[in-house]
Amino acid sequence: MLPASVVARLRFSISSVGRTPALRPNLHRFAFAAPHPRRTYYGCITDSKMAPQLDPFFQKVDELKQPFIERLREAVAIQSVSAQAESRIDVVKMGHWLANQLTDLGAEVEMRELGKEPGREFLDLPPVILARYGSDPKKRTILVYGHYDVQPAQKEDGWATEPFDLTVDDKGRMFGRGSTDDKGPVLGWINVIDAHKKAGVEFPVNLLCCFEGMEEFGSLGLEEFVKAEGPKYFKDTDAVCISDNYWLGTEKPCLTYGLRGCNYYSLTISGPGQDLHSGVFGGTAHEPMTDLVTLFSKLVDSQGNILIPGIKELIAPITDDEQGLYDAITYSMDDFHISLGSETSIMPTKEATLMRRWRFPSLSLHGVEGAYSAPGCKTVIPAKVIGKFSIRTVPNMKSEDVTRLVTEFINAEAAKLQTKNKIEVALMHDGKWWVASPKHWNFAAATKAVKQVFGVDPDMTREGGSIPITLTFEEATGKNVLLLPMGSSTDAPHSINEKLDTRNYIEGTKLLGAYLHYVAEEPINKA
Amino acid sequence: MLPASVVARLRFSISSVGRTPALRPNLHRFAFAAPHPRRTYYGCITDSKMAPQLDPFFQKVDELKQPFIERLREAVAIQSVSAQAESRIDVVKMGHWLANQLTDLGAEVEMRELGKEPGREFLDLPPVILARYGSDPKKRTILVYGHYDVQPAQKEDGWATEPFDLTVDDKGRMFGRGSTDDKGPVLGWINVIDAHKKAGVEFPVNLLCCFEGMEEFGSLGLEEFVKAEGPKYFKDTDAVCISDNYWLGTEKPCLTYGLRGCNYYSLTISGPGQDLHSGVFGGTAHEPMTDLVTLFSKLVDSQGNILIPGIKELIAPITDDEQGLYDAITYSMDDFHISLGSETSIMPTKEATLMRRWRFPSLSLHGVEGAYSAPGCKTVIPAKVIGKFSIRTVPNMKSEDVTRLVTEFINAEAAKLQTKNKIEVALMHDGKWWVASPKHWNFAAATKAVKQVFGVDPDMTREGGSIPITLTFEEATGKNVLLLPMGSSTDAPHSINEKLDTRNYIEGTKLLGAYLHYVAEEPINKA
Repeated sequence: MLPASVVARLRFSISSVGRTPALRPNLHRFAFAAPHPRRTYYGCITDSKMAPQLDPFFQKVDELKQPFIERLREAVAIQSVSAQAESRIDVVKMGHWLANQLTDLGAEVEMRELGKEPGREFLDLPPVILARYGSDPKKRTILVYGHYDVQPAQKEDGWATEPFDLTVDDKGRMFGRGSTDDKGPVLGWINVIDAHKKAGVEFPVNLLCCFEGMEEFGSLGLEEFVKAEGPKYFKDTDAVCISDNYWLGTEKPCLTYGLRGCNYYSLTISGPGQDLHSGVFGGTAHEPMTDLVTLFSKLVDSQGNILIPGIKELIAPITDDEQGLYDAITYSMDDFHISLGSETSIMPTKEATLMRRWRFPSLSLHGVEGAYSAPGCKTVIPAKVIGKFSIRTVPNMKSEDVTRLVTEFINAEAAKLQTKNKIEVALMHDGKWWVASPKHWNFAAATKAVKQVFGVDPDMTREGGSIPITLTFEEATGKNVLLLPMGSSTDAPHSINEKLDTRNYIEGTKLLGAYLHYVAEEPINKA
Repeated sequence: MLPASVVARLRFSISSVGRTPALRPNLHRFAFAAPHPRRTYYGCITDSKMAPQLDPFFQKVDELKQPFIERLREAVAIQSVSAQAESRIDVVKMGHWLANQLTDLGAEVEMRELGKEPGREFLDLPPVILARYGSDPKKRTILVYGHYDVQPAQKEDGWATEPFDLTVDDKGRMFGRGSTDDKGPVLGWINVIDAHKKAGVEFPVNLLCCFEGMEEFGSLGLEEFVKAEGPKYFKDTDAVCISDNYWLGTEKPCLTYGLRGCNYYSLTISGPGQDLHSGVFGGTAHEPMTDLVTLFSKLVDSQGNILIPGIKELIAPITDDEQGLYDAITYSMDDFHISLGSETSIMPTKEATLMRRWRFPSLSLHGVEGAYSAPGCKTVIPAKVIGKFSIRTVPNMKSEDVTRLVTEFINAEAAKLQTKNKIEVALMHDGKWWVASPKHWNFAAATKAVKQVFGVDPDMTREGGSIPITLTFEEATGKNVLLLPMGSSTDAPHSINEKLDTRNYIEGTKLLGAYLHYVAEEPINKA
């Protein structure tokens, strides 16, 4: 007899299948498979029901550890820096390398050109690598996204090792540019296919890959591309998974279900016809820089409180349900201080810190264009300064409401200055916040995969930052998007000595594979 | 019989001579020379007493107008840009050219090396050109200073003509880098010697020249040099004249007797261990940029009022005498708005504007080092920002008092922020204000020279800016320093389309020569 829990899932599955019988026949297969007895995997106790194919897959991944590291070494060696024009040829080379890897494993690969790079029209944008692995109408189709370009890196920046020569230390830390961001996770998907083939395990889903080469330079052209392919290449997508962020700490995996948005503003103040000598003009003319700092000081205080009236009222209220969420997260103020590189935290507790990072807006002053910014002394009165600031947005803040409040407030404060300078505030760009339901079956499947591989329930996290393409995939496919990170909080992406731990790479490959098995069979819910 | 005024001067002179007989015997020569009858020169009525030698000198200057312009053309063609390492060879070339000009005219020239450039030790500093023209113990010795280096210039910056190709338009405006700052005035002194020689007029003084090649890059090494030479090369100096500033307007010459000082500060605020992503950290950590703008906003308001307590109390009170000074100056708010390039003036009247510029301190915020300063958007939280501001100082503000008040105030305001960031204020450099007595005989002589050449009394002006070497010459020689400008307010030094009007160059040459004649004979007073 089936355990009650399986019966419940079976009922749910059958009722789902009843609605879309052609799409979900494989659920029957699951329904009649005997649940695995409780057993120990990799040193941890788990009572997850294991899908039948995982054991040989996991063993194969362990066997292939060294070849997988070599695969990452090959990828890291290609200096696919998207920001540098002179490296564009290597970005393209990396795209071809990736296409070859996928083709060799039996995927159908398309290299889609995106045209010239806006602003640097002498450069072709690197191709988007689209790959389809499997097209069984009886299986679910999972779309995964990653990027094969990297941030710039030079040994002289302070790297302890050659940044494009993957170097593994005795703790298993694999140092190299792109190791964690995002070549490791991209290769994770390829490793999953490879290990399934070599283990002779049937691949559980149809996999669609979308790997871009411009993520570190603003994902130029990708948004339009994804929107256009929503009803075309991506049309069969049942769920989306992106592995391009990080665990909150170093020990416990997480699933990420929310991102803050970002409204970026310029505050332009101009007066004199040209930069002035502060000796000749100091005290006699309204100085744009003085007006700017005065207005900047009205926007936010040293405790990080946004002072613009009306912003607070746009924030979704905290529910009773929510309060407990932050408590449960494996995180400490020590973790926070380590990532901050100092103890200059505002909030006293991890809960308050996480809430400020995930579910409250923040306002940061990024800098001033047009003022003196070099070392040393210059006695200039800048004629025109452009202050840059941004507001990280959260549910339910609408971009247009934020912009209206910002503009009205700055105009009102500017009037109080009684300056003759011209003051203009403008929205430079905005990206909406994104929050998915962590109770969606896509997340439920990933939760089981984490428990299977790591023996713990993942932290359900949000991120303070923005990954605009997440929302684009959600909107283009109409499906749930899951962020399933591979790397840990200490990986230093974008920084010197970027690394990926071997454990995260190998267990992470297992996790991605296990996720595909669970998501293939997870009963559909409506969360 | 001598007129009463001459008798009075004779008495004064003799009493002076009585004290220092060896130094002033030429005053006897003056005493017995018949005063010139009232006459018209160059279309203007003047009742100045003309020194006997001026007429032939003036005529010779007029005759030599074209060669003098050619001399300036030659000088402008040498691209003596002191800021650019690649131009250093041309700065040195310019020094040699100048030395040759002086040697050809019979001056004894020395080229003094100043060693390596601090911070760019691969560069030799250009030589200081010292020249002595005449060493008659019966004559006064006048020390003149100028500089032969220039600001950078490229046609692409927006010049209407080639910046190093002197171009004279139909209004007589001579466009070219260095034309007014400071090659024109330096050649003015050389033209004076030239015209005297060619006219066969005895040179009225012993002239000492000190021409440097690093003025546009901070006069590196000059201060120490001048101090060291005070009791040596400059020891016979009776008065100093510097021609390196500008008329207040375009029509009327001025003599400048005061400069503001400058205290330049850095305000360094640091917290996080590295620059942060505003998405990940916004709202959770004290942001140095927020602290900085808050503190900056406490220093000065949009009306240019310094908000630091105690600063006002350091300012010398306005005397009854003084109020009338500003009234008398030929200047208007239109002149001010033209130089400002806008109508963003703070004060409603010329008097109030001039007082703010000349005799009140001002505080300017120059910029921020370490924050984002490029065009476009970057969502960074800068880990360390260094705000730069300076205070222009006036009598009787002492640098150390200003620094104490600034530091105490910033520390008090920083404490109110309750930030965990580290905040440090530091004095980067200071230069003292300088005020000479406009009633000193050096100024009296220059006043007569202006009246002789231009037919008007000069405006007695101060400057808002600082020329630190002025005070250095005063201290090194113990003598009065006069600023005697050649160019006008529209000359655009440091800017594109720098020019010197032919009238200012030719009449200015006459003025410098006339000044030497008057200063040779002006009775010594103690003002």
